[in-house]
Amino acid sequence: MTRIAIDAMGGDYAPRAAVEGAVWAAVEHNIPIELVGKLYDIERELDRIEQEGIVQSSGGILPVKRIKVNLKNLDIKKTNATEVIEMGEAPGQAIRKKRNASIVVAVNSVISGSSDAVVAAGSTGAAMGASLFGMGRLPGIERPAIATVLPTMKKPFVLIDSGANTNCSPQMLYQFAVMGATYSRCIFGNEHPRIALLNIGEEAGKGDELAKETYKLFEENKDELDFVGNVEGKELFYGNCDVIVCDGFVGNVTLKTIEGVARMLFYMIKQEFSSDLISKIIGILVRPVLKRIYKRINYEEFGGALLLGVKGITVISHGRSSSYAIKNAVKLAYDAVESGINKKIAAYYQHEQA
Amino acid sequence: MTRIAIDAMGGDYAPRAAVEGAVWAAVEHNIPIELVGKLYDIERELDRIEQEGIVQSSGGILPVKRIKVNLKNLDIKKTNATEVIEMGEAPGQAIRKKRNASIVVAVNSVISGSSDAVVAAGSTGAAMGASLFGMGRLPGIERPAIATVLPTMKKPFVLIDSGANTNCSPQMLYQFAVMGATYSRCIFGNEHPRIALLNIGEEAGKGDELAKETYKLFEENKDELDFVGNVEGKELFYGNCDVIVCDGFVGNVTLKTIEGVARMLFYMIKQEFSSDLISKIIGILVRPVLKRIYKRINYEEFGGALLLGVKGITVISHGRSSSYAIKNAVKLAYDAVESGINKKIAAYYQHEQA
Repeated sequence: MTRIAIDAMGGDYAPRAAVEGAVWAAVEHNIPIELVGKLYDIERELDRIEQEGIVQSSGGILPVKRIKVNLKNLDIKKTNATEVIEMGEAPGQAIRKKRNASIVVAVNSVISGSSDAVVAAGSTGAAMGASLFGMGRLPGIERPAIATVLPTMKKPFVLIDSGANTNCSPQMLYQFAVMGATYSRCIFGNEHPRIALLNIGEEAGKGDELAKETYKLFEENKDELDFVGNVEGKELFYGNCDVIVCDGFVGNVTLKTIEGVARMLFYMIKQEFSSDLISKIIGILVRPVLKRIYKRINYEEFGGALLLGVKGITVISHGRSSSYAIKNAVKLAYDAVESGINKKIAAYYQHEQA
Repeated sequence: MTRIAIDAMGGDYAPRAAVEGAVWAAVEHNIPIELVGKLYDIERELDRIEQEGIVQSSGGILPVKRIKVNLKNLDIKKTNATEVIEMGEAPGQAIRKKRNASIVVAVNSVISGSSDAVVAAGSTGAAMGASLFGMGRLPGIERPAIATVLPTMKKPFVLIDSGANTNCSPQMLYQFAVMGATYSRCIFGNEHPRIALLNIGEEAGKGDELAKETYKLFEENKDELDFVGNVEGKELFYGNCDVIVCDGFVGNVTLKTIEGVARMLFYMIKQEFSSDLISKIIGILVRPVLKRIYKRINYEEFGGALLLGVKGITVISHGRSSSYAIKNAVKLAYDAVESGINKKIAAYYQHEQA
C-alpha cells in the first residue's frame, strides 16, 4: 500500500491548500495520505473540511471545483511536526537545526517506511536538502536533479535539471539524461524517449564548454540513449523531444522565464480586453477560449517537479500551489512510486557496472 | 552626415526585405543608406521598387503597410560585394576566406568612413566576427557583447549579453553592465539605469560561481552602477529594471525561450479559435485585440540587437527580419551613431584609468 506524506506547512497557502489538496487526492484517487505538520493546524483544517463536507480549488481564471468529502472513508494519518522552515532561511542550516521541521519529519516518514513519498510546496532548498541528506543518493548517482514537466504544442517534455545543481560536469548531465529518460518511460509511457541538449545553436560544436563536452558524451553513448541533438529555446515547445537536459542554472532561468512570459501575455490580454467597452464585451466572449489555453499550459496540471536520484520520491511543488496543484502532486508522487522509477534508475547503473 | 550600410544579402528574405527595409528607413527617417551586396541583385530590387513606387511590409498578423517611394529623392549608395556568407558556414573561417562577402564589405565601409554603422540580418556569428576583427574593440573593453531590447508590462529593458560570449568572467559581466547602462541612457534616455543580474534567486549568495562573484563585484561598485540586485526569469517582464546582465549562453537561451513561449501561446490561441464555428466567429472579433498585443511584443519593433564594445556600430537583426524590422534596425543604428554611444563607453574607461 503506497502512502504519500504531505508537508502540511509548506507553500504560500499552507496549511489550507496542502491539507485540502491531500484530502482531494485521497478522495479522487483513493490514495492513503500522511499529513505532517503542527497537529493543531492540521486538525483545524480537517475539522473545517468535515463540517463543510467539501474541498475546493481556488479557481482564479478557472472555475472553482467543489469535491464532496467524507473524511471517515479516507485513509489519513496525522504526524506532528512542531517546527516550520520558512522561505527566507538558509536551507542547509535550517534542516540541521530544526530537526522537528515538517519537511524533515515528512522525509523521515519515508525513511522509516511510514510513507513512500513526500510532497512539499515550501522551501525548495529545504525539500532538496532534507531529501538528499535524509534519504541519500541512489547507487551510481553523483547528484540528484529536479525534473519538471512542461507543456508544448504537442505532448509534454521533461526538463532536467531545473534547479538543483548550478555547477555541472558533462557526466552529471549524462546522469540527468538517464534519470529524465526513466521518468519519461515510467510516467508518460514513452518506450524510447528522445533526449536533447538545451543549447544556443543546433549544430554540434555550439555552446559553452559544458554543452560541447556533453554533446560529445551523448554522441558516444547513442546506443544507451536516443540523443537527437541540440535544441534551442525557440524550439522547446514544438514537442519534438521527450527529455531536455541542461545544468540547473540554465534550467531554472528557463523555467522561470517561461512563467514570466506567460504571465506577461495573460496580463496584456487582460489589459487589452479592459481597454474600452467593445473590448470588454469581446473579452467576456473570449473567456472560455482563454480558459482552455490556460488549462493547457497551467503548471498546476502537473502538480510539481520530481527530485530524482535520491532513495525515495520527493515532489517539489510551486510555492503558490493551490489545493488543485497539491492534489495533482500527490497523484504524481503516487504514480512515481508505483512505477518503480527508482529501481529502474538503479538498475541502469547496476547494469552499467556489471 | 550619418550613413548606414546594410548587408543586402543577409537574412531569410534577402535581398528583398533588406533592400526594401533600407529604402523604407531612407523615406521615413531621411537616413542616407549604403546597400552592400551583389550589384545585380540590389539593382533589380531597386528597379522593382522604382516601378512599383512603393515598399511594403510583409504583414503576417499585422496589416500590410505600403509606403510611397520616389528613389530620386533618396540618398542611396550601392557597393558591390560578390560573395555571401551562408547560415551554415563556420563564421571565423568564412570571414577570413570570403574577403568579398557582403558583411565583410559592409564592415569595411564603416572602417573606411564611407558609412557609420552596419545592419546585418545574416549569420550572427559572421556579423560579430567581421565587426570584431574588422573594427577592433573599444579601448578598455575585454569582450564585445550583444544587447537586445525586450518588451515588458511597462517599459522595455536591455538584455546583455544575449549571445556573444559563452564563457564569461565577473569582470566581463561588469563591462556588459557598463555598456548596457550606456545603451539605456543613449537610446531610452534613462539617466540612471537600474541594473540587475539574471539569477535563480533574489538573495545574495544565490546562483552559480559566476553569479555569486558578479553579485559581489556589482555590490562593490554601487557608486558607479545603480545595481538593484538579482532578478529571476519570472520577474523579467515586470519592467522594474533597465538593464539585465548575464553571460551569453544564459542570455541566448533566455531570449530564444521567450520567443518559443510567445510562439506557442499564439499557436494555441489560433488553434483554439479555429476549434469550432462559434470559436471561429469570436476569433474574428478578437483579431484587433490580438494584433495590439502582438505589436506590443513584436521584436520587429526594436529592429535588432546592438553589438556593443566594437569601434563602430553593428545592428544584428533576426534572420527572419521583414522589411519592417530592417527599417527599424536602420533607425536604431542611426540613433546609436547620433547618440555617440561609443564615445560614452570609451569615456567611462578613460575616466576609470585616470
